[in-house]
Amino acid sequence: MPGNLIVENATELVTCSGFAAKYGSQMANIGIIPDGAVVIENERIGYVGPTSGLPADIDRTGFEVIDASGKAVLPGFVDAHTHFVFGGYRPEEFAWRLRGDTYMEIMARGGGIHNTVAATRKAGIEELTVAGRKRLDTMLSFGITTVEGKSGYGLDLDTEVKQLEVMIDLDDRHPVDIATTFLGAHAVPPNYKDQAKRYIDFIIADVLPEVTSRNLAEFCDVFCEQGVFSIDQSRRILKAAARSGLKLKLHADEIVPLGGAELAAELGALSADHLLHATDTGIAAMAGAGVVATLLPATAFCLKEPYARAREMIAQNCAVALATDLNPGSSFTLSIPMLAALATLQMGLSPEETITALTLNGAAALDRADTVGSLDPGKKGDLIILEYPSYHFIPYHTGVSIVEKTIKNGTLVFDKTCNEVPYGDASKC
Amino acid sequence: MPGNLIVENATELVTCSGFAAKYGSQMANIGIIPDGAVVIENERIGYVGPTSGLPADIDRTGFEVIDASGKAVLPGFVDAHTHFVFGGYRPEEFAWRLRGDTYMEIMARGGGIHNTVAATRKAGIEELTVAGRKRLDTMLSFGITTVEGKSGYGLDLDTEVKQLEVMIDLDDRHPVDIATTFLGAHAVPPNYKDQAKRYIDFIIADVLPEVTSRNLAEFCDVFCEQGVFSIDQSRRILKAAARSGLKLKLHADEIVPLGGAELAAELGALSADHLLHATDTGIAAMAGAGVVATLLPATAFCLKEPYARAREMIAQNCAVALATDLNPGSSFTLSIPMLAALATLQMGLSPEETITALTLNGAAALDRADTVGSLDPGKKGDLIILEYPSYHFIPYHTGVSIVEKTIKNGTLVFDKTCNEVPYGDASKC
Repeated sequence: MPGNLIVENATELVTCSGFAAKYGSQMANIGIIPDGAVVIENERIGYVGPTSGLPADIDRTGFEVIDASGKAVLPGFVDAHTHFVFGGYRPEEFAWRLRGDTYMEIMARGGGIHNTVAATRKAGIEELTVAGRKRLDTMLSFGITTVEGKSGYGLDLDTEVKQLEVMIDLDDRHPVDIATTFLGAHAVPPNYKDQAKRYIDFIIADVLPEVTSRNLAEFCDVFCEQGVFSIDQSRRILKAAARSGLKLKLHADEIVPLGGAELAAELGALSADHLLHATDTGIAAMAGAGVVATLLPATAFCLKEPYARAREMIAQNCAVALATDLNPGSSFTLSIPMLAALATLQMGLSPEETITALTLNGAAALDRADTVGSLDPGKKGDLIILEYPSYHFIPYHTGVSIVEKTIKNGTLVFDKTCNEVPYGDASKC
Repeated sequence: MPGNLIVENATELVTCSGFAAKYGSQMANIGIIPDGAVVIENERIGYVGPTSGLPADIDRTGFEVIDASGKAVLPGFVDAHTHFVFGGYRPEEFAWRLRGDTYMEIMARGGGIHNTVAATRKAGIEELTVAGRKRLDTMLSFGITTVEGKSGYGLDLDTEVKQLEVMIDLDDRHPVDIATTFLGAHAVPPNYKDQAKRYIDFIIADVLPEVTSRNLAEFCDVFCEQGVFSIDQSRRILKAAARSGLKLKLHADEIVPLGGAELAAELGALSADHLLHATDTGIAAMAGAGVVATLLPATAFCLKEPYARAREMIAQNCAVALATDLNPGSSFTLSIPMLAALATLQMGLSPEETITALTLNGAAALDRADTVGSLDPGKKGDLIILEYPSYHFIPYHTGVSIVEKTIKNGTLVFDKTCNEVPYGDASKC
C-alpha cells in the first residue's frame, strides 16, 4: 500500500537524527545504526533502529517490504536553493565564460538573467511545467525529495506569478516536495533600467501583495550584490516581505563582500546563500543569529570563483547546508554527487559534514527541519537506498549517482533497476 | 533488425570526422552538420550527411529508424584508460586523503593498489565478471562504446591472466568494445619487496609469454613512477613487450617529473597517460613522436593534484585524449560529464577540444582511430543521441549525463527513456 513501507537489514542506516539545524562540530554527527530498519506507516516514519529491534510480531500486511542488505539507507536529500522553473537555455554562455567573459559582463550585455527572463516571459504554463517536471524527475533519480524553487525570471507581475503557480501545481502533482520562494528582486528588468527604486516600489506595492494574498510563496529572497540590489535596497524589500509574513533568504556576498551575511543576521533570515566572499564578521554574525549558510559549490566551480570558506564557517559554529543552485546560467546542474565531490575535495568538508549539509541542514534552511531531513519518528517517510553498503561511497564513487531507490512519503518513486516506477506503482517491478 | 539503423533529422550531427589522432589546433574541428542523418548497415556506418542528402528512395525495410529532431548526435565515447576489473572497494581511502594522507603514503602502508591486489586475487571469475558487467552497463549509460581495461591487480601469473580473461569474456558478451592492456608492472608485489629486478624478470620470463601466446592483451603498460618502476626498468619491460608484439602505453609523470613522457616518445608508445608533471621537454618529445597525451583529470581532482597542462600540450601540437582512469582508489568514477566539466573548467579545453579528446583521440590512444571515434563511412556504427540539441550542453549541463540513447554497432543498447533495452531488443520500447 502506498505510504506503508518497511526497510530492513540495511547494512548502514544513516539517520542524521535531529529536529533543528546542526551547528559547527555537530555536523559530523550523522547517527549510524548498523543493520538498521525503518518503518513508515501512513507516510510518516514510525520505527527507526536496529532490524533486531523490530517488533517480532510486526504485521507486514499492507506494507511494502524492502530488504536493504548490502546497502546504506539515508534521509532523502533536501536541495534548498534552486531556480528550477525557467524558459530557454544558455549553453553558449558556458563557452563565453571559458573564453574569459565574466558572469556580470554577460549579464550587463543582456545575457545572463535577462536572457532567461525574456524566455520565461514568453513560455507558456504547459512548457514551463513540462520542463520543470523533467527536472524534478531527474532530482528524484539523484535522491532529492524536497527542493526549493524560486521565481525571479519574470520581473513582472504576470510572470513572477506564473513561475510560482507552476511550482505550486507541480508540488501537487509530483512526489518531490517543493518550497516556493519569491525572488522578484533577482535583477532590475530592462524597462526599469537605472530606476531600481521604482522597480522596488513596484515589487513591494504590486507583486508582493499578490504573492502573499494568494499564498504563492513561503520565502522571499533578494539578489543582494554590487550592481544588482544594494544592502539598503535588499533590507527594504526583505522587511516588507517579513511584514507580509514571508520568511527571509538572501543571495549574499556571491561576487563581492557587500555585507549580505551581516544583513541576513540582522534580519534573522533563515539562510544566507552563496557567501563566496563572506567576511569573518559576516560569518560570525550568521553563527550568532542562527542563519543557515547555504553553500552552492557548483556555482563557484562553474564560474571559476573561489569556494565559500566552509571550514571557517563550521569552526565559527555556523550551520552549513549545500544546494545545487540549479539554474540555466551559472550552475545548470542538479548532480548531488558532484556537489559531494566539490564539498569534500574542494571545500574540505568531511563526508559526514557533507551528508548533514545535504539533508538536515538543507531542511533547516527551508524551516522544515521538524518534518524532513532526517530519519526520526514522526517525520515524513523520505529516504534513499544506495547501491553500496556505506555513505562513504557517496563522495568515493566520484560524480556518479549511487542512489538505487528513492522513497517519498513511504512510497517508492524512483528505482534505478526499474524504469517502470511511475511515482508509486512499484508493483510493476 | 539489429545492426541496421537510420538516424535522421538530428538538429546537430557532430561527426568528429577523421581516421587518425587530431593534433593541436585540429582538435577544435569537430565537423558539425545541421539537420544531419546517419545510416548504419550491417553494423557499419554508410551515409553521414544532411538528412536532405539521404537517397529519396532509401529502403527502410529492416532498418530501425530514429527521429533525432531536437537532439544532437555524436560518436560514442572512447574511454582509453581504465582499470575496470577489480575486486573489493577502498572507500575509506577517500576519507583518509581528505585528512591529508597522500596516495603514496597509503600505498606504502599496504593500502592503495596492494589492498585491491589482495581482493582481486581472492575474487572468483564470476564475482569479477558480475562487477565488471555492472560497470560496463554504467559506461553505456554515459555513452561509452569502447573502453580500455588493464590488468595489474594480480601481480602474479594466475591473477593477471584471470583479469584479462574476464575482460575478454566480457568483450564477447557485452556491447561495449574492450581493449585489453597487460599492466603486470603496476606495482612491485609484497612478496618481491625490494626485489623489483627479480619481479621484472618474472614478468618478462613467465607472465608476458603467457599473455602474448594466448592473445590476452593488445597493449602493455607500466606504472613508471618514483618508488614504483624507474625509467630504466620501465624501458626494459616495454621493450620486451614490444618484441612480443604488444603496443605500448605508459603511466607517465603522474606524481613527479620522472621523464615518462620522454620515454614514451623514445619507444614510440601509442600513449603516455596522466602527465600531471610532464616537463616542456617531455611534451615536445610526445608531440614529435605522435604519442597521444591521455589525460585523466578525475584522478588529479580526486588526489587534489594539479591538472596536466593540456593547453601547453595542444599549443605544442600534441594530440590530447581524456579518460576516466576508473579504478577503486584514486579515481572511482566513470562520469563522462564530470570529465567534461573538469576538462573545460579546470584545464581550459574548449567544448570542441573536449569532444575530440573523448572520441577520436581516445580511439587513437587505442590504435582504433580507423574503426571508431568518429562518424565516418566504414567505421563501426557507434553513436550517442543527446537529450538536447547541441554538444554545448555536455559541459553546460554540468556533471549530469545528457545521453538519451547509446547505439553500438547500429543497435540500440541504452535508452534513458526505457530500461527495457537488453542490449539490442529495442522492440520492447
